[in-house]
Amino acid sequence: MSGYGVENLPYGVFSSGDGVRRIGVRLGDDVLDLSPLGDDLVRQPTLNPLLAAGRTQWTALRDRVTEAVRRDEVTRVPLREVTLHLPFEVADYTDFYSSEHHATNVGHILRPDQPGLRPNWRHLPIGYHGRAGTVVVSGTPIARPHGQLGPGEFGPSRRLDIEAEVGFVVGVPGARLGTGDFADHVFGVVLVNDWSARDIQAWEYQPLGPFLGKSFATSVSPWVVPLAALPTVAAPHQDPVPLDYLRPAGSGFDLRLAVDWNGTRVSEPPFAQMYWTPAQQLAHLTVNGASVRTGDLYASGTVSGPARGQSGSFLELTWNGTEPVKLDDGSTRGFLADGDTVTITGTAPGRDGDPIALGEVVGTVVG
Amino acid sequence: MSGYGVENLPYGVFSSGDGVRRIGVRLGDDVLDLSPLGDDLVRQPTLNPLLAAGRTQWTALRDRVTEAVRRDEVTRVPLREVTLHLPFEVADYTDFYSSEHHATNVGHILRPDQPGLRPNWRHLPIGYHGRAGTVVVSGTPIARPHGQLGPGEFGPSRRLDIEAEVGFVVGVPGARLGTGDFADHVFGVVLVNDWSARDIQAWEYQPLGPFLGKSFATSVSPWVVPLAALPTVAAPHQDPVPLDYLRPAGSGFDLRLAVDWNGTRVSEPPFAQMYWTPAQQLAHLTVNGASVRTGDLYASGTVSGPARGQSGSFLELTWNGTEPVKLDDGSTRGFLADGDTVTITGTAPGRDGDPIALGEVVGTVVG
Repeated sequence: MSGYGVENLPYGVFSSGDGVRRIGVRLGDDVLDLSPLGDDLVRQPTLNPLLAAGRTQWTALRDRVTEAVRRDEVTRVPLREVTLHLPFEVADYTDFYSSEHHATNVGHILRPDQPGLRPNWRHLPIGYHGRAGTVVVSGTPIARPHGQLGPGEFGPSRRLDIEAEVGFVVGVPGARLGTGDFADHVFGVVLVNDWSARDIQAWEYQPLGPFLGKSFATSVSPWVVPLAALPTVAAPHQDPVPLDYLRPAGSGFDLRLAVDWNGTRVSEPPFAQMYWTPAQQLAHLTVNGASVRTGDLYASGTVSGPARGQSGSFLELTWNGTEPVKLDDGSTRGFLADGDTVTITGTAPGRDGDPIALGEVVGTVVG
Repeated sequence: MSGYGVENLPYGVFSSGDGVRRIGVRLGDDVLDLSPLGDDLVRQPTLNPLLAAGRTQWTALRDRVTEAVRRDEVTRVPLREVTLHLPFEVADYTDFYSSEHHATNVGHILRPDQPGLRPNWRHLPIGYHGRAGTVVVSGTPIARPHGQLGPGEFGPSRRLDIEAEVGFVVGVPGARLGTGDFADHVFGVVLVNDWSARDIQAWEYQPLGPFLGKSFATSVSPWVVPLAALPTVAAPHQDPVPLDYLRPAGSGFDLRLAVDWNGTRVSEPPFAQMYWTPAQQLAHLTVNGASVRTGDLYASGTVSGPARGQSGSFLELTWNGTEPVKLDDGSTRGFLADGDTVTITGTAPGRDGDPIALGEVVGTVVG
């Protein structure tokens, strides 16, 4: 019961001895090589052509793979023998800010003299554009960013943090999409670690938002779990009632994230509690006429629940470093130290009792 | 004396009868078809392979084209017979905020209770990431964006604006670049109109910066003027002295922009007065370890001089609509009306008296 059973079948890009990138599907601890199974859509070095092909083709391929697995007519390669690559070419990368608990916590920490949530937060899914060119696959080492930490002050970030998020991978282009268009345009889900240098960010972010505090690296899991594999849940109650273009809200997803810091489980952020749904985020992203493209990645924003042990960032977990956490080796941490490894994993409840695992996203900080 | 003489020779992508996209160079009112002249680098549907080839190749090709023009060994196609396309595939789009006059004006207009410039502004080139997928070539109609204008309020933007900017096109990838690396990595210059819906922006931008107020469209000129064609000027005095990674400042460029609103010249923004240089912007963009890629576009930010008639935005020109401008047809404007056309042009002084023209960027608002 690895979480990668026949109900999951996430897509990725792998290479083995010959270095050629191929599309594969994870099953247990193996990778299924799709090239004997499929057509031109899957004989590719990235998922982009499959993403662009649309829902009918996504369904047909998933059915074909499922059938081949059931008949055991697949070519398996052990996961330990392959290299996993960034599964798709990222077009635009957008990051939302849709956890009420996260936004409230950050507000309290960074702007203690003001209410946690700003007046606009319950009216629209706040978001911003990030850097697509520095989205990297899980396992890529994360070099500690240098930058301005304050007036006349320069050096390596001393408040390097994570943000545990869920990312949505756009397949079919579109503009002015309604919330009901979500499943026709979004192919699937990755886990995201939006590494953040809080000191760089705090000094630079007024008035145009985060820039170098985020742009150095964003890690994504190597496996894109198709929407078809994920059970949905009711969206959260929203007050005030959103404007028409954000209705109906669409579904939430019962994804249960976990954050391990050097092997110590420090947090379990609950995605089901996110205030804005991914369907609303997509509708908002395109309501002004902006188009989305194949390979666009939009992330949920840091997933944090109401409890401290449900924090999706260390900023919240350690309350800006003032309440360090103790790791299993006896050491304590406020923010990330050089050599630290963070692993974000996630599962959704499966229909047959076997959970659906989201591919993990791992990164080690190098100084 | 068109501004497109042999000292200029900007690159673009055109098609004529057969619809095939080809790389061309503008000379006077003609397009030179480069395919007979060059190698694989110029037999392409975009400039990206040429951008990636690096400075030695850029120089060699420019020399070859110059020589061919002098010998009149070129294939000319009249400009009126071709369609011009987006000249390069935009990788990441970044926008700075490097005019002191613009930043001060916007501060005074939007935050009248605070100083115009924020404390960080003179320490670092403030910037943010924009949407690469909605960068369009000059001439593309601009659909008025819809969106949230305030709590519970939705509709077409009523404060649609322009931002006249200069964009820098990255050729050679890199990270942690110094200011001295500028001319090895940046290929050339386009004019940019970063269309902005001020009402959408004002409601959404706290705390993560501009998003839907900008993401619907950014227009660029169809001609990329190589750095080699542009005379440099001394960079402006900077106080406080910037941190080491922003020194030496590198050069400024004496580009003189002009904004025509339905044919009436309303503004002449002076690029030479920009506070941060493009070399400093590139160094800042990469100091944290972030990489730039071939096709990255980074824009200067709105170019505004100290006088009202040097405003690069209508927000400033009409002081947020409170002091409308009168156009030659007798009508007045605060912000853009449906059907309005904005044309941004620019020139640099040429060595031989003939100015170097930057390709114009035109857009008409459709309701």
